[in-house]
Amino acid sequence: MARVYAIKNFKINKENLALQETLFHNANGYIGVRGTLEESSAENMDTMRGMYLNGVYDIAPMKQAEKLCNLVEEKETMVNVADTQTIDLYFEGEHFSIWNDKISNFERKLDMEDGVSERKLDWQTRKGSRIRIEIIRMTSFEERALFTIDYRITSVDFCGKLEIKSLHKGLVQNYFNPDDPRLAGESHQHLQKKDVRIEGRESCLVSQTAKSKIQIASSVTHCIYKNEVQMEEKPPVYHKDEHSACLSDCIQLEPGDRIRIVKYTVFADSIRCRDCMVTARTKMEQILKKGIDFYYECQRKYLKDFWENAAMKIEGDEDMDSSVSFNMYALLQAAGADGHASIAAKGLSGEGYEGHYFWDTEMFMLPFFALTNPAIAKQLLTFRYETLNKAKENAALLGHEEGALYPWRTITGRECSGYFPSGTAQYHINGDIAYAIVLYYLCTGDWEFIKEKGLEVLLETGRLWMDVGCWKEDRFCINCVTGPDEYTCMVNNNYYTNACARYNLEWIGRFTDKFQKEDGWRSFADQMGLTIRELEEMDGAAKGMFLPYDEKLGINPQDDSFLSKPVWDIKGTPKDKFPLLLHYHPLHLYRYQVCKQADTILSYFLFPDYQDEETMKKSFSYYEEITTHDSSLSTCVFSIMASRLGMKEKAYRYLGDSAKLDLLNTHKNTKDGIHAANMGGCYMAIVFGFAMLQIKENTISLSPWLPDAWHAYRFRFRYQGRLVEVQVNRDESRIHLLKGEPVETEFYGAKKRLEEKQGLKWNGREVCFL
Amino acid sequence: MARVYAIKNFKINKENLALQETLFHNANGYIGVRGTLEESSAENMDTMRGMYLNGVYDIAPMKQAEKLCNLVEEKETMVNVADTQTIDLYFEGEHFSIWNDKISNFERKLDMEDGVSERKLDWQTRKGSRIRIEIIRMTSFEERALFTIDYRITSVDFCGKLEIKSLHKGLVQNYFNPDDPRLAGESHQHLQKKDVRIEGRESCLVSQTAKSKIQIASSVTHCIYKNEVQMEEKPPVYHKDEHSACLSDCIQLEPGDRIRIVKYTVFADSIRCRDCMVTARTKMEQILKKGIDFYYECQRKYLKDFWENAAMKIEGDEDMDSSVSFNMYALLQAAGADGHASIAAKGLSGEGYEGHYFWDTEMFMLPFFALTNPAIAKQLLTFRYETLNKAKENAALLGHEEGALYPWRTITGRECSGYFPSGTAQYHINGDIAYAIVLYYLCTGDWEFIKEKGLEVLLETGRLWMDVGCWKEDRFCINCVTGPDEYTCMVNNNYYTNACARYNLEWIGRFTDKFQKEDGWRSFADQMGLTIRELEEMDGAAKGMFLPYDEKLGINPQDDSFLSKPVWDIKGTPKDKFPLLLHYHPLHLYRYQVCKQADTILSYFLFPDYQDEETMKKSFSYYEEITTHDSSLSTCVFSIMASRLGMKEKAYRYLGDSAKLDLLNTHKNTKDGIHAANMGGCYMAIVFGFAMLQIKENTISLSPWLPDAWHAYRFRFRYQGRLVEVQVNRDESRIHLLKGEPVETEFYGAKKRLEEKQGLKWNGREVCFL
Repeated sequence: MARVYAIKNFKINKENLALQETLFHNANGYIGVRGTLEESSAENMDTMRGMYLNGVYDIAPMKQAEKLCNLVEEKETMVNVADTQTIDLYFEGEHFSIWNDKISNFERKLDMEDGVSERKLDWQTRKGSRIRIEIIRMTSFEERALFTIDYRITSVDFCGKLEIKSLHKGLVQNYFNPDDPRLAGESHQHLQKKDVRIEGRESCLVSQTAKSKIQIASSVTHCIYKNEVQMEEKPPVYHKDEHSACLSDCIQLEPGDRIRIVKYTVFADSIRCRDCMVTARTKMEQILKKGIDFYYECQRKYLKDFWENAAMKIEGDEDMDSSVSFNMYALLQAAGADGHASIAAKGLSGEGYEGHYFWDTEMFMLPFFALTNPAIAKQLLTFRYETLNKAKENAALLGHEEGALYPWRTITGRECSGYFPSGTAQYHINGDIAYAIVLYYLCTGDWEFIKEKGLEVLLETGRLWMDVGCWKEDRFCINCVTGPDEYTCMVNNNYYTNACARYNLEWIGRFTDKFQKEDGWRSFADQMGLTIRELEEMDGAAKGMFLPYDEKLGINPQDDSFLSKPVWDIKGTPKDKFPLLLHYHPLHLYRYQVCKQADTILSYFLFPDYQDEETMKKSFSYYEEITTHDSSLSTCVFSIMASRLGMKEKAYRYLGDSAKLDLLNTHKNTKDGIHAANMGGCYMAIVFGFAMLQIKENTISLSPWLPDAWHAYRFRFRYQGRLVEVQVNRDESRIHLLKGEPVETEFYGAKKRLEEKQGLKWNGREVCFL
Repeated sequence: MARVYAIKNFKINKENLALQETLFHNANGYIGVRGTLEESSAENMDTMRGMYLNGVYDIAPMKQAEKLCNLVEEKETMVNVADTQTIDLYFEGEHFSIWNDKISNFERKLDMEDGVSERKLDWQTRKGSRIRIEIIRMTSFEERALFTIDYRITSVDFCGKLEIKSLHKGLVQNYFNPDDPRLAGESHQHLQKKDVRIEGRESCLVSQTAKSKIQIASSVTHCIYKNEVQMEEKPPVYHKDEHSACLSDCIQLEPGDRIRIVKYTVFADSIRCRDCMVTARTKMEQILKKGIDFYYECQRKYLKDFWENAAMKIEGDEDMDSSVSFNMYALLQAAGADGHASIAAKGLSGEGYEGHYFWDTEMFMLPFFALTNPAIAKQLLTFRYETLNKAKENAALLGHEEGALYPWRTITGRECSGYFPSGTAQYHINGDIAYAIVLYYLCTGDWEFIKEKGLEVLLETGRLWMDVGCWKEDRFCINCVTGPDEYTCMVNNNYYTNACARYNLEWIGRFTDKFQKEDGWRSFADQMGLTIRELEEMDGAAKGMFLPYDEKLGINPQDDSFLSKPVWDIKGTPKDKFPLLLHYHPLHLYRYQVCKQADTILSYFLFPDYQDEETMKKSFSYYEEITTHDSSLSTCVFSIMASRLGMKEKAYRYLGDSAKLDLLNTHKNTKDGIHAANMGGCYMAIVFGFAMLQIKENTISLSPWLPDAWHAYRFRFRYQGRLVEVQVNRDESRIHLLKGEPVETEFYGAKKRLEEKQGLKWNGREVCFL
């Protein structure tokens, strides 16, 4: 069955327009284009008409209500770079618009194998003539600077003049909604006119961001075909005041005539190239030579590889299967792959969280890439390495004498968090990045990356733990930080944070032990100013790291004081009071045992060796009762841990909540963009949860189980250069080493060595070779 | 010796101008006028040309960097209401200005017995003619709407034309310094033109605040005398655009001629009267009939009473004596006495903290008034009673289902704190207000006030403690609040807060017990919805209130987690890094044991019965080592407790730090206004510290000691309608009941009953009647 998400005979209205724009967005890790309608919007429609370039930002003021020392007072914000989406058609003067009752056979589709979005519909003019419209959009993976609109018009029985007005607008603004705390809440004119070139069919506009001074060139060219024959259309007209160009054309139509408008947009920005205009125009020239069909073909091929690598398939639950595909595809669309950018919390699908990168990338999205597309994972980590200096500056602003503190939210590496108690205070971001580096290493065995980049990051984040932490008798403690659960802020010994720090420090020990036996060690150590004494101190801190444990309850308290607070009455709280953060003052929330999301539970998944199963089980039950899952990063983690702790029904239910979060708009804000982290979490819930995959330094361990509602599932992953396939059905589970060197496996507890093309089978009783 | 603060042969410059404006300000609890120079300022001078009316505010936006639920996004801010200070003189066209080298015999004086400020100097024109200038300013206690400038010019040997330009400007702006976090940091045009009336010698301008829509009328009239004979001056000219009027006059001078310009300003505002313009003009008419000398006489009489009531005098340390007088006088100037206003942190002397009222009033200033001028104390508490409804609204915004939470900073009773962790989270303000009500009751015995207003406040603040607190086993705990020490935020069981809450709840019990025996009880209880059960719960909470104690150190920890943090290295911190809040990120500060100010130590002074002396001593030593006194509310408290715990030398040293804080500008920000709380603290350090006064329900207890550096000191105070005098010298201490019913005293531990005019003497060995 094809990987397609489609809706049919659906009526777009004021309420679902922006949501549709998110769900049908096109992106390729560089360009993101919301699924905005080509025709100009009707009045009063809540639309976010946006096109974004990953990493392209401006600086906006972020005034603090009280100017405490070193608070952040400027933020980076993703800018809406241009509007090349708008195409208005007039049939004998009548404007074609979806906001017209005479629409039938409406269909909208995201084809994840072809890598395009489509909109199809039949339209009737006031006089009753019928027109067929079909629009295909693509952001190319082959040429990441390219976005295309392939607009096809068929006159069923229309006879008369078709007028085309296709816009290319340089000076656009960002979306503005003053009421939503999760959006920027203010609008600035971020773009300024810089340059323009109109030549023949091509318009090329260069804008510059107001404060960050980034130049963005957008080049647009149209090719118009009538009944498959290319026409000579009029060149675009440039409107100087608005920094925009408009192509106008007029075609006489007879019944049966087919018009195809191919609108090519090529972007270039000054972060990635020297002369944007030249770059964009040169690329445009090359692209036009190859033509759109070439790029359609490349797109299909790229996605064939992508799907074959991941090969995730669920049988017996079509909905779930297509949701999971949708999520994986959205992740691919979101991922910056050139080291200049990472993955924003909303990918490139909308302006929620202002295009900022959070821990979401490392903890929820990177594992998917590490297992299926390690090159992207490497780029994501390279981005963190490249911003290490800014993390050191951030640490200094926070009063630290040593080490690096990664920003809680950022585009270029500078902290952009305005409310530090649930922003900058989340020091665990350091440990999250360290964890992701180790995970990447375990998945790929890429020791060169560790030596060149990864270990340096681990050391500087490790130094921060040493600087922020302190010994209290024989315990190494970390005070006044915030864990992932933002309903509890600035606490001592957050279990999750301390566990992260321990892992970070432990792996410094493992990596330096290994490195010390190699040639480059001496110069590396000198360059880092690293001494044996420092390494010993780190080792001591890792060993002495305090992980709070409550004897009476037999659980790990979220932090030193968590259990001393009263428990929030979740059941007694009216449904319309969720998410709590929108209805209660933060100080009120901080006063209760109530969790926005998985915190200690997440650490059990990441660091299963730090506690025994009994403690994890008791904690799971405890935290489950007090977690609202107001964060979209929560249910996937509960699903994984439910799997690992043998609570299959729960694991399945939590996955359901996670998998369809955006498609069903369960958090009611998908209109601002996808919840990319949750999408990665959904993948993890299957692979790390259901299949119980654990990636170790020299082994992979699995013991998959099958939810009652499914018939079967399968997926592939890469392990240190190998390609492994897992298949699970009602009768048996199988693992195959499809490609690569022999590998040690632990399949349902049985330790076996698999040769290339060899497989194992578990029939519910025993493991045997196939 | 007269109570005068004077400086002579002093050179005003760019650095000390604004400081001088604060120190020589005039205020009467309603009007505040900074000691700005009458002549227009030279360029680049950092001057805060301000005139304020207590309680007159506008609303300014206070944008939050992140819009969390129910955060405060608007603040009230004291507005600069008009400029009637400016008087420019031109001698044969040459502008008289202090920024001229030809100044001699400069003298500036605050006469605290006459209740005026004076500036005197001799000036030489470019041509060498000598002029004598003498300017006297007064804000009248007799007529609080009146401010006068009495400008006297003597020509020593000048011959020629004197031109006078005296300004009355309606549209002024507030001071603006974007760099200082303790000021507003932004400027808005708060005033708008409303009305104007020029008639004869009088100009009356009415302005209106932009958002709060408060009208302010200022009426100005000049009387000009030449050699004591009143002249007919030209009527003022009204400048329409600037909403200002200017009186111009031209007088021919001969050597020996004396000119006197008396400039009367009368204010009225729509908070306090219906038609401001009519009110101001009517008052002006009455005032002119009586003339300035009448008001000078009233002023002297008012202050004679004031000083006789307090009668504080220190012998053997002139500096200290005049500092203490300065402080007491400043407090009197600051205190709102009409129930519409309270005492701002900077009094009416400057725009620091935007004219906001804090806990400073109740905890540091009210005791002075309760002991010397109970009518003012009553008005201050009435202000809190009148704003109880806003405190209930505030509590609801914070998520409380019951009770009232007073705002951390406010003008009308609405919360104006932008950073809640060290603002709104300081719930102890509730207990502070309750404490002040009880103190007022103990000092005055005003049971009617308690029944009519005080008990209602205590009950609503008490209900908040019940709502925010929770039982943890047999301990009543209060989580996630901030104590007075702002270097530690949002903690559980802050000792100070819990002690405040306990006292609040205990006195609910005492007052209701007493009330229950009286007639009005039933209807009061019904009106308050008060049940026996609720009172029992409050009583239980008071008895079970958790006051943290550390067995090992034998001290009271500031909060549950305080002692688990590392100690800040105060001695190792460079001097230029103080105050720490200007140099370290708050998150960094929160992570250490370091106190901005007295916290637990303050509670020992307020609630001495809650701990034994041993614990208090150990705690004192402990906290002394980790307190930076970056807050001006700190050293006075340390002085009191040092006295009480027998550390006389320390007590004396801390008093020294406190007493001259503004006169010596030790906190380097007196230019923004006085530190009114510290001034009250200084008084308390002598009366409650040195004299060890304790006010109890039926007794006063004292055992005064004399610092080595002093020869003697004495003071008077009121106790439940009585007037008591205390005299301490090297040989003996005396207490006299000057006036009133017999009183039980505990003098150096000896319990004696004093009749009117009777006294006791302590000679170092025994107490005996005089």
